Amino acid sequence: MTTTEITSGRARIAEPGEGIGLDELQLATRNHGMPLEALRYDVTPPGLHYVLTHYDIPAVDTSTWRLLVGGAVDRPLRLSLEELQRRPAVTARVLLECAGNGRARYQPRPVSQPWLLEAVGTAEWTGTPLAPLLEDAGLSPEAVDVAFTGADHGLERGVEQDYARGLSLAEALRPDVLLVWAMNGAPLPPQHGAPLRLLVPGWYGMAQVKWLTRVDVLTEPFTGFQNATAYRLKVDAHEDGEPVTRIRPRALLAPPGWPDFMTRERFVRAGTVPLTGRAWSGRAPVTRVEVSTDGGATWGDARLAPADPAHPYAWRAWSHDWTARPGRTELLARATDERGSQPVEQEWNRQGMANNLVQRVPVTVLG
Amino acid sequence: MTTTEITSGRARIAEPGEGIGLDELQLATRNHGMPLEALRYDVTPPGLHYVLTHYDIPAVDTSTWRLLVGGAVDRPLRLSLEELQRRPAVTARVLLECAGNGRARYQPRPVSQPWLLEAVGTAEWTGTPLAPLLEDAGLSPEAVDVAFTGADHGLERGVEQDYARGLSLAEALRPDVLLVWAMNGAPLPPQHGAPLRLLVPGWYGMAQVKWLTRVDVLTEPFTGFQNATAYRLKVDAHEDGEPVTRIRPRALLAPPGWPDFMTRERFVRAGTVPLTGRAWSGRAPVTRVEVSTDGGATWGDARLAPADPAHPYAWRAWSHDWTARPGRTELLARATDERGSQPVEQEWNRQGMANNLVQRVPVTVLG
Repeated sequence: MTTTEITSGRARIAEPGEGIGLDELQLATRNHGMPLEALRYDVTPPGLHYVLTHYDIPAVDTSTWRLLVGGAVDRPLRLSLEELQRRPAVTARVLLECAGNGRARYQPRPVSQPWLLEAVGTAEWTGTPLAPLLEDAGLSPEAVDVAFTGADHGLERGVEQDYARGLSLAEALRPDVLLVWAMNGAPLPPQHGAPLRLLVPGWYGMAQVKWLTRVDVLTEPFTGFQNATAYRLKVDAHEDGEPVTRIRPRALLAPPGWPDFMTRERFVRAGTVPLTGRAWSGRAPVTRVEVSTDGGATWGDARLAPADPAHPYAWRAWSHDWTARPGRTELLARATDERGSQPVEQEWNRQGMANNLVQRVPVTVLG
Repeated sequence: MTTTEITSGRARIAEPGEGIGLDELQLATRNHGMPLEALRYDVTPPGLHYVLTHYDIPAVDTSTWRLLVGGAVDRPLRLSLEELQRRPAVTARVLLECAGNGRARYQPRPVSQPWLLEAVGTAEWTGTPLAPLLEDAGLSPEAVDVAFTGADHGLERGVEQDYARGLSLAEALRPDVLLVWAMNGAPLPPQHGAPLRLLVPGWYGMAQVKWLTRVDVLTEPFTGFQNATAYRLKVDAHEDGEPVTRIRPRALLAPPGWPDFMTRERFVRAGTVPLTGRAWSGRAPVTRVEVSTDGGATWGDARLAPADPAHPYAWRAWSHDWTARPGRTELLARATDERGSQPVEQEWNRQGMANNLVQRVPVTVLG
């Protein structure tokens, strides 16, 4: 970062070999990832789930907070948290992943939140379905999109805004889209959107609007910054690009053995080493997880835990026994869903979004 | 990071202008800081408190876990968590800060966990005093130090180890040193040391050993890696250096207004802007907090909340009304305790430890 930059302009691409800048580090130290050993938990414990906040975590006073449901509806609503909590409640185990996960490994690197691979987590989210609430408000037959606005306020590439995202009406009316007030059985923590956030299972994190203040039904497509400018898949700056939507398939390996403090290189002893991890996809059921223990030269099938019909959007456990021989190698894991496999070579886009390049874990096997 | 480095050797100092490396980023994305807007909470909510783990967060099975108390004692003890929880319990509100807080702002930068200023948090810790337990075990009259060993295992500058720290017997017998099993009224989360950690109020984080497995009474000074090699204040690599011990005074300002996403520059509107923050010291009572709103040219006293005798090791709130005029400026805050003030110019050491250089918050005031 040049210290004379006060506001961010167009997204920048790092020069070849350019280290992480203070601007990227400021984001990395605020936001936090899930250390990959936490893949061991079916449900990510509080505080280990990833968090990405565009601006600040707002201070919301739940006693005076109200959710406004308006726009193209017959009967606008103004609801307290207690009123929302009197509606039917559902708990869903859902994986979330930041659309920028893996960005810092891209070459060249888009300059933004520099995630390696840890921007994930799976929680039990409790809330009330959105669709019946919209029906109670009386949806206009002209409705096409629904806009969700949060209390987090900031400036981004010159646009001052409350964070807001639009969803098509069809997505917003899915029965599994929830307005959520609890995480893992406890009130939503401030950093996860207290008192109320949106949950759109299967979509990347940008759709899961936190600190909700307004739900507006629109008769025209939503054209706000976070849909039209941010969260687009494009290679050239001048393209419109495709919107980022559902989570692509990914498998992650819990790094085995023990680490070196600074390099994070892994060490294991020769012999049978159980490898374990999780796999998921937000766009189609996961069908296969493969593991390579020789840097990608050969692959073998992992044992994939059966899909749990009660939790279609949770991650699934997998395991694979590795016969480790002394020397240095790289472990890879690759998920396949009904639509395809993770790429082994990067598929670059200039915002570093929806990058599901396979993970590589260097390991030294001690004799 | 050169990709051929498998294990970390001697701590490295970054070249002038060298960006943050992938090795530092790997630590920054695993460990996490407290976003500074969370200074608003008297007690840091779960998941916002800073976390620094040298190796991995270990998987400890509480049902089989036991704490061993041994070494120079008459009656070695082997205690389950239930047995510990039947002992007298105390809850203490205590601030913790990583000894490396502020490291990434040092010039030149020691290469390690690259904290900016967010490696802090204040929690309510519940546990049982250590001293009566040591007395029950029958302390040898020859005892000089007590070693605390955790379950986290790794390699650091060539030394394979379970994380372990020594404390002088006098410190270990302080009545406020606790063996802790709960944080903010809930069981200790995995990343904070479940099922049991040490709490040494007033000391930097390296003394607060997590995932405790052993407490060993020693008749010779402890010479383990984390006391003898890491956590030393020294300028030249060949010095022995002074040990890092108690937390130096610091004031932090909750950045006012709203941020730019990427630069984190702050924006406020001209007029009266209330500035708030926290101040603390682990070595002596805080006596004063000063604020500069003109980049350090002039300083004014902040209103410092009275010390709470029930919580001598918690942070203290402070506030200051700023009459903001259009333009760009830098806000600074500086704490003074009975032993001295925070430095306005850096006092460099090669591990980037116990650095309490004053914070600077660039702000643009809009007309």
